[in-house]
Amino acid sequence: MKKKKRNAFYAQSGGVTAVINASACGVIEAVRKNKKYFNKLYAGKNGILGALKQELIDTSYESKTDISNLKNTPGGIFGSCRYKLKDFNDDETDYKKLLDVFSAHDIGYFFYNGGGDSQDTSNKIAKFCQINNFDVQCIGIPKTVDNDLPLIDFCPGFGSVAKYTAISTLEAGLDVASMCATSTKVFILEVMGRHAGWIAASSALANESRKKPPHIILFPEILFDEKNFLNNVQSTISKHGFCVIVASEGVKNKKGKFLAESGLKDAFGHSQLGGVAPFLAELIKTKKGYKCHWAVADYLQRSARHIASQTDVEQAYALGAYAVDLAIKGENAVMASIKRVSENPYKWKLTKVPLSKVANVEKKLPSKFISSDGYHITNSCRKYLTPLIDGENFPKFNKGIPVYSEFKNKMVKKKKL
Amino acid sequence: MKKKKRNAFYAQSGGVTAVINASACGVIEAVRKNKKYFNKLYAGKNGILGALKQELIDTSYESKTDISNLKNTPGGIFGSCRYKLKDFNDDETDYKKLLDVFSAHDIGYFFYNGGGDSQDTSNKIAKFCQINNFDVQCIGIPKTVDNDLPLIDFCPGFGSVAKYTAISTLEAGLDVASMCATSTKVFILEVMGRHAGWIAASSALANESRKKPPHIILFPEILFDEKNFLNNVQSTISKHGFCVIVASEGVKNKKGKFLAESGLKDAFGHSQLGGVAPFLAELIKTKKGYKCHWAVADYLQRSARHIASQTDVEQAYALGAYAVDLAIKGENAVMASIKRVSENPYKWKLTKVPLSKVANVEKKLPSKFISSDGYHITNSCRKYLTPLIDGENFPKFNKGIPVYSEFKNKMVKKKKL
Repeated sequence: MKKKKRNAFYAQSGGVTAVINASACGVIEAVRKNKKYFNKLYAGKNGILGALKQELIDTSYESKTDISNLKNTPGGIFGSCRYKLKDFNDDETDYKKLLDVFSAHDIGYFFYNGGGDSQDTSNKIAKFCQINNFDVQCIGIPKTVDNDLPLIDFCPGFGSVAKYTAISTLEAGLDVASMCATSTKVFILEVMGRHAGWIAASSALANESRKKPPHIILFPEILFDEKNFLNNVQSTISKHGFCVIVASEGVKNKKGKFLAESGLKDAFGHSQLGGVAPFLAELIKTKKGYKCHWAVADYLQRSARHIASQTDVEQAYALGAYAVDLAIKGENAVMASIKRVSENPYKWKLTKVPLSKVANVEKKLPSKFISSDGYHITNSCRKYLTPLIDGENFPKFNKGIPVYSEFKNKMVKKKKL
Repeated sequence: MKKKKRNAFYAQSGGVTAVINASACGVIEAVRKNKKYFNKLYAGKNGILGALKQELIDTSYESKTDISNLKNTPGGIFGSCRYKLKDFNDDETDYKKLLDVFSAHDIGYFFYNGGGDSQDTSNKIAKFCQINNFDVQCIGIPKTVDNDLPLIDFCPGFGSVAKYTAISTLEAGLDVASMCATSTKVFILEVMGRHAGWIAASSALANESRKKPPHIILFPEILFDEKNFLNNVQSTISKHGFCVIVASEGVKNKKGKFLAESGLKDAFGHSQLGGVAPFLAELIKTKKGYKCHWAVADYLQRSARHIASQTDVEQAYALGAYAVDLAIKGENAVMASIKRVSENPYKWKLTKVPLSKVANVEKKLPSKFISSDGYHITNSCRKYLTPLIDGENFPKFNKGIPVYSEFKNKMVKKKKL
């Protein structure tokens, strides 16, 4: 028996990326192509909050052109959120609200686009619906610059950060190489990665040889040894004249404390989260006397759509469209995923994994990917990472500035619940 | 009487840029095209130090392809330096060394590529040569991301930083707009500009309306008023939900002290140069309670060749080639420069200005370019800046990474002086 047409809900969650909107584009275009299965596609304003507060955006008002250009637009077009659902065994309040909104708006499909926490949210909602015999199919769409989701080759968003990080390291490396004779000897780039060193690792794609930048990579997976690190900086400068360091924000000292939190106090004696890069710069300057420059990329790295990876954009888009396919096929409580089929040439295929196997699992950089001295990547890591940054996917430009989509984001009239 | 063929010297000085090598490319290609005027083109290893230490690079060993791709390569291919010549009335030592090296290697042309200090160096050498009847023509080639040289429409290097800054502000602005409902409310981007606010000003090209990022720009030309600033942040958040701030590194408080130097102390009580961005983030967090994210672009901004401005690349190249023309025409003690001919469409022409009028003059952001509240730019500033970021000039890519030139940099055999 053919299922009756129902509405779908899509929302973006957690830290946004350069390509999360490419997934949104994939979802919207696939739903529009499959009108026999779907009525409207509603987007949640600010992630799951849009459902909880009944703040639904009617995507049917957006033009084909704007939707197509969403593929090229960074940020989260519908707004994102950081909101963790409680366990429904402890508190059902939110879940009941969700089901009320889904019922009121005849929502039969729930697409949630995010990282580990968001897959956990989808998994919880799927379970709650199953237990309560409530007919909503929940499909997760992966996204995280941290690349820390399990059971997927790469997480959409990571590839573009990786490309940005590798290129920034290459370019800043050429700069400091020019300056080191009479000025800056050390350059430190701080990148994201609170618990997993994937982004820091990707800086190694800047150059094939360790003799070139980045000379030193600091991973959250490796405890920081001050003496050993300073010796490494010194010997790098002796050999090459300068030293480029890429540090994960999450680097910890031997006491397990974030470097970014250690030492600095403001004028009132409050401890100051100054970032790893300025901490390392001060350390090197004080202990070794070298002139340092440092950069903290922060949001620039994850929003840098202008230098997005073609592979990343393609995968992000494909995952969005595939999530809709999975819904049409009747799948539930699964995440759209990517499996590597071959390495050289890089080939991948779409696949699905159970949400229960993804939720709350964090994929760190495995030890086989970290060089034996702890300061660089291995060849197997390089092989794994290289295909991901391949290809460019430049946005259109007007007067020197990328043309990014702006949406009407017309709200659906609230219903009495 | 036709002048006899002699060798030429070219060197790069001061902080390097995304396009200083485009000027180098212009010089080298023009010299190669004019073999009847020039023998060899030597490059100084690390700027003027290459001449002082007789460390000369013979550019004739570089392939046509590598030289052509220099136009796309950031950093300073021959190395740069920070070295200020003393006044020759106080100390002639360096000048005598230079003339010895020029004589020994039959150098009749001195091309120096740099900012204000470097034009001062060229000017001093030109004067010293004139006084001593020493036949070397000195031609300055402008370069500085700070855009603070007088008598030139734009300084090569600035346009690409401006483009990088505007795009980064646009992209990070979209990111924080997505996050602000439940997380980050304020994003601060720190950019270069110790004394002049040109780079900070260029962030305004991200959007045409002040209602969109950047909402607040902090210039070194305007003293920082904490209370007024915090009120501005708060009202921006009330109106728009979030606030994007772009701050020059050189912002000073009412006592004339750099914000970057105020307040922070390390664990040993040493005052800490933590950057303006983390200082502002801490201030906003402490006084207003908003969650802040901050980025410090540092070398990333001036080396970002991947997103260079086409106009900037063209001007940098043209100035290099034109400096050679000026030398052929017998000019001395001048700087190759650019004059704006028309605004819309933007047209420019090459011109020359006396080095004496350029040396030691710093062009700050004029008050007519700063909005009356001191936190944004005026329309006339926007008109001035817009053409400069126009056009893209992407490098070639291989495996996802730009292909940048590497030189042999073969040294000339030293001669006994």
